[in-house]
Amino acid sequence: MPYELHYWPTIQGRGEFVRLALEAAGADYVDVARGCEGEGQGVAAMLHFMESPAVQRPPFAPPFLVDGKVIVGQTAAILLYLGPRLGLVGKSEVQRLWTHQLQLTIADAVSEVHDTHHPIASSLYYDDQKPEALRRAKEFREARLPKFLDWFESVLQRNPRGSAHLVGARLSYADLSLFQLVDGLLYAFPKATRRALMKTSRVAALHESVAQHKRVAAYLASERRIAFNEAGIFRRYPELDG
Amino acid sequence: MPYELHYWPTIQGRGEFVRLALEAAGADYVDVARGCEGEGQGVAAMLHFMESPAVQRPPFAPPFLVDGKVIVGQTAAILLYLGPRLGLVGKSEVQRLWTHQLQLTIADAVSEVHDTHHPIASSLYYDDQKPEALRRAKEFREARLPKFLDWFESVLQRNPRGSAHLVGARLSYADLSLFQLVDGLLYAFPKATRRALMKTSRVAALHESVAQHKRVAAYLASERRIAFNEAGIFRRYPELDG
Repeated sequence: MPYELHYWPTIQGRGEFVRLALEAAGADYVDVARGCEGEGQGVAAMLHFMESPAVQRPPFAPPFLVDGKVIVGQTAAILLYLGPRLGLVGKSEVQRLWTHQLQLTIADAVSEVHDTHHPIASSLYYDDQKPEALRRAKEFREARLPKFLDWFESVLQRNPRGSAHLVGARLSYADLSLFQLVDGLLYAFPKATRRALMKTSRVAALHESVAQHKRVAAYLASERRIAFNEAGIFRRYPELDG
Repeated sequence: MPYELHYWPTIQGRGEFVRLALEAAGADYVDVARGCEGEGQGVAAMLHFMESPAVQRPPFAPPFLVDGKVIVGQTAAILLYLGPRLGLVGKSEVQRLWTHQLQLTIADAVSEVHDTHHPIASSLYYDDQKPEALRRAKEFREARLPKFLDWFESVLQRNPRGSAHLVGARLSYADLSLFQLVDGLLYAFPKATRRALMKTSRVAALHESVAQHKRVAAYLASERRIAFNEAGIFRRYPELDG
């Protein structure tokens, strides 16, 4: 039975971290909310899990994964669940925890990216919080973005199995997620991100190598990869790039 | 060997979620940064793990746990690690994932609380972002706070083992963390939180019952419990409570 990924159908958003893992592993999955309502898919099928009182463990928000009777929400928890099943994490508890810790730090960075264009309220338009966004984005570009990338650079540098991967000597979901973070940052803050990547060459190299992974490359070139856009988390508002 | 908790010594902050788990389980632990430098403790001992190039897996930020050779950062990952060891999570994978998912949602709420007083930059003073804080706090009080508590209410309501606990029929670290979230909200936003708790009686009851848990009650009455204060995540700025 294929995995069911439930996420908003027109953006990469947080769902993209799950899509990348499923795609890199060549897993059988359905991107439910992008399917046809006539086939029991579409956004209504997704909202069912969030709104029906019959669901014992309702997700707080998309993305969530449905695997038979198991429903898992929260991006990092989904990857914790999928990692061993897709062969995208090491076998020891310590490796799994470290990979998860990296993922949680990527999630923190993603939340901060979201708040560069929505520092006041997700329910308001960007234009209704633009002065605040300009201030917050400056702080993000100048302090936070370099801090996150520097940390991942030191993680790669200190990996005793080499700096091609964040954990051990093989691709993990954390590598895929760092690729996605960097890819999104390059879209949203091209100037600031290129500047930061000049000082974090291992992170830049990992971004390149994941993009060339056979199945990832095929996915990125397919129509399954939704383009970055200004409804997602990574938005190109040039004024926020300084 | 006692667990070592590393966190800023003068605030509850994110470290408090770990302290509560250790205390509720009666675990042997050292709150390292609150100890004496003369005994190899204090803030310097904490910063060592973050700053020394010799640390292979450096935490991005406190809190982190040191257990022999294992270093775990990120509050939710620490609890994922400690849960089974402290008997604060169920035995099945599904229960553990669900407990973790609840914890991650609490972490999201905590980040949003932080941003009510620091919507622009953690590096700036509150007074330097007060107009923005007033706007963000209004959104938090009116939309987000009730949304989070409503969701936890429905989780309690739908628990087939009864609404005394979030998962199954026994205390888990998610119960402790929800206690702490509500306790902090009552400190920071007393009016808005009491209003929301009127409609989420199961959440209110869980907050009460955790406070009366024997070891938790003893901890809360001890000097080990740092008082809420305006350097932590939950801050009482009356103007932010509407």
